Formats: sequence, C-alpha cells, structure tokens
Amino acid sequence: MPESVEDRLKGLGYELPDVPSPAGSYVPATRAGSLLFTAGQLPFREGKLPYTGKVGQDVSVEDAKEAARLCALNALAAIRAGADSLENVRRVVKVTGYVASAGGFNGQPEVMNGASDLLGEVFGEKGIHARSAVGVAELPLDAPVEVELIVEVD
Amino acid sequence: MPESVEDRLKGLGYELPDVPSPAGSYVPATRAGSLLFTAGQLPFREGKLPYTGKVGQDVSVEDAKEAARLCALNALAAIRAGADSLENVRRVVKVTGYVASAGGFNGQPEVMNGASDLLGEVFGEKGIHARSAVGVAELPLDAPVEVELIVEVD
Amino acid sequence: MPESVEDRLKGLGYELPDVPSPAGSYVPATRAGSLLFTAGQLPFREGKLPYTGKVGQDVSVEDAKEAARLCALNALAAIRAGADSLENVRRVVKVTGYVASAGGFNGQPEVMNGASDLLGEVFGEKGIHARSAVGVAELPLDAPVEVELIVEVD
Repeated sequence: MPESVEDRLKGLGYELPDVPSPAGSYVPATRAGSLLFTAGQLPFREGKLPYTGKVGQDVSVEDAKEAARLCALNALAAIRAGADSLENVRRVVKVTGYVASAGGFNGQPEVMNGASDLLGEVFGEKGIHARSAVGVAELPLDAPVEVELIVEVD
Repeated sequence: MPESVEDRLKGLGYELPDVPSPAGSYVPATRAGSLLFTAGQLPFREGKLPYTGKVGQDVSVEDAKEAARLCALNALAAIRAGADSLENVRRVVKVTGYVASAGGFNGQPEVMNGASDLLGEVFGEKGIHARSAVGVAELPLDAPVEVELIVEVD
Repeated sequence: MPESVEDRLKGLGYELPDVPSPAGSYVPATRAGSLLFTAGQLPFREGKLPYTGKVGQDVSVEDAKEAARLCALNALAAIRAGADSLENVRRVVKVTGYVASAGGFNGQPEVMNGASDLLGEVFGEKGIHARSAVGVAELPLDAPVEVELIVEVD
C-alpha cells in the first residue's frame, strides 16, 4: 500500500498545521468543479509569524525559503479542509508567490523554491506545477512571503 | 419569491454601475466552462477615481475600504455582462486584491474586507470566497486598489 | 484552409522561442481539465533579458511594451508545449501582468497592451481576454515585466 501524503509529510519532519484563521472575511479554500483555490497563505507557525519584514534586508534568503515552506504547509492544511483529504489531490496546478522585497532584491524564484520543493517532496509527480513569483511592496502583517495554490482534486 | 441579487444591492443602497471600459486592449470578463474571470477592476465611480495614491499615506484605510467596495461593484457589473445576470452566479470562488501601499502599511486585509463584506451581503453563503490580498508598488491611474474575481456560474 | 496560428506569428515577423527554462523547481505550463495555466513568463529573447530595471526610470514605456510582447511569446511557447499545438487554443481567458514600476509610474495598462495586442493579432477573436495589470516592487532577475496566461484548450 503506498504511503499516504500525510505520512510522507511526517516522514519529512513536517506536521500539518491547523487551518489558519483567515485575516479577513473569507475562507481558506473554495472549490469549483475539480479546481480548489486556496486563499493567500502567510507563513504562520503555531499562530505566529516567525519572520517579518522585507527579504533582502530584514529577512535572509534562507529564512525566506523557510517562510515560503511554511506558507505551503498552511496551504496544504487549507486544501485538506477543502478537499477532505490530501489523498484527493490529483495535481498541484498553479503556485503564485508574493515576496515582500527590499529594493534591488531579485531572488524571488529562489525564495519560492522553498514552497515548490516541499510540494514536489510531498506529492511527487503530482506536485509539479506552474508558478509565478513576484516581488511586492508590502504584505499583510509585514509577512515576508504569501503563497496561494490552485490544485485539481478528485 | 426570494429577493434578486440586484434588489438586494439596491436595498443596501448600491447601484450597479455601467461596465467600466477596460483601460487597455481586453474585455471586462471572460468565461471558460463554468468559471468566469473578471479583469482587474479599479475603483471607478461615475467614470472617475474618487481616491488616488497610496494607502497608509495619501488614502486612509476607511477610504481604501470604500475603494475596494467600488472595485467589487465594478466587478459585479463585469460579471453581469459576462453571465447575463447576477442570478447565474453559483459561487464567488476567488478574490484577489492589490492594494497600492505606502512603505510600512500592512493593513491590506482590512482594506479588502470592503470588497469581501459587500460580496457576503449581496450573495450570502454564495458570496463566501478564498482571497489573496497583497500590497503593490503602483497601480494603473494611481488607483489605491485593484480587485479581480473568479466566480462559478450556471 | 485557414492560416495556422504559427503561420500568422511568422507573418507578423515573430518566431516562437524555445520553451524558456523555469527559473526554479516548476514547469512552464500545467493543464487541469480544459484550462491551461502558464508559469509567469519573463521577457527572455534568445536566453537573455534585453531589458532590466524599473519601468518609468530604467526602461521606457516603449521598451516595456516590447518586453511584455516577449513575455507573451514565451507564454505561447509554454502553451504549445503544454497543449501540443497552438491550434488547440480555444480561447485566451486571462492575462495577468506584473510591471516592475518606478515610484509614480502608473502606465501599467499601456505596457501590458504589448502582450494583449500580440494575442489579438495572433488569435483574433479567440485572443480577447480579461486582464489584470499591476505595478510591483521587484521581479526575478530584475526583469521589467512578468506575464502569466490562462487559456482554454480543446
């Protein structure tokens, strides 16, 4: 019997967090047909943001990669809530990453690899996605990264 | 007979604007299967932008919330044009809000609640959506907010 | 026999580039049902970025329009790879354009017309899309423009 996605997460040393409370009047994920859209996820860990500020100034690239990974974990929690189980994920379709960037910082792809690599580790072939990464001026709560996912579900 | 979405809008004191003319070579909304995608909507009111500049500096949070509400109204006009009637909206799926943000302004979620709350008032359960809110450097015509919607239609 | 999309591209003096290598751990395009999502495309030409920096400061509006056109060409290459042939494109659904913008630059729509006009020339009615254009702080590799597409395919 193949390992479940959640077992693989645990094997990698990750624990699926509780679904983060949205920072406004909306929900963590919605479904339309076979597509599931997550809200933009901030890098919360146990209810707190371990990093704040601009990448390339207040936050190092390594820490920002870890923040992107946390965003992806929170997105997985939102997907589990919206699709009942991560086993129902047929394909990660699109990842969009917003990186709060200091002037002159252009390493958004490296930062976002923190999220993309996690999805590849967890889902294998099904985790390979199209991606956009951009450098924004400011993010909610001074988070360094915000990530949203579109996944195809059974 | 249940109240129509447009009646509810009127009851809330809103009037659906004319579909705003796109600021470039594109259309206000397109449909693919049961999904309808709006163009990014600026906070036009009667053809003018009542607020311009950066939120947290030139534009207060309260005015920016009102701007987000105007963006949402223009998005509804685009949806009505693309789906024939707002009665055909099965679900608001995703809202993305771009807030032109002064350095150090991190209240994008509060601003975007202006759009999200309107959608909840107008559509009830069907208006509850996933959302991303980010702070961008500049927006077309110096608008303080731009909002795009994905909705599921019959 | 009607002209093929690729013939039309050639007739307009464009050549479809090779699919650009993603700048991170992801793929150029993914498909979910009849929707195809491209990754964010940078304005590569023969493997190099002909323009870098902020629009309205380092890069003129005309050059930025050309950059947006290059992004769109790279997106078409990604779509051809993901959908086997550009003939399978039923409709360009959504274009999102991120313009690295100098403070006070608000001409994002004009810049993005470089991409939208190309799609109209190449696909005719099928190329007419909804669009969002925003001004971001920084982009990967200091690119002035990044463009992503959602298209409906057969």
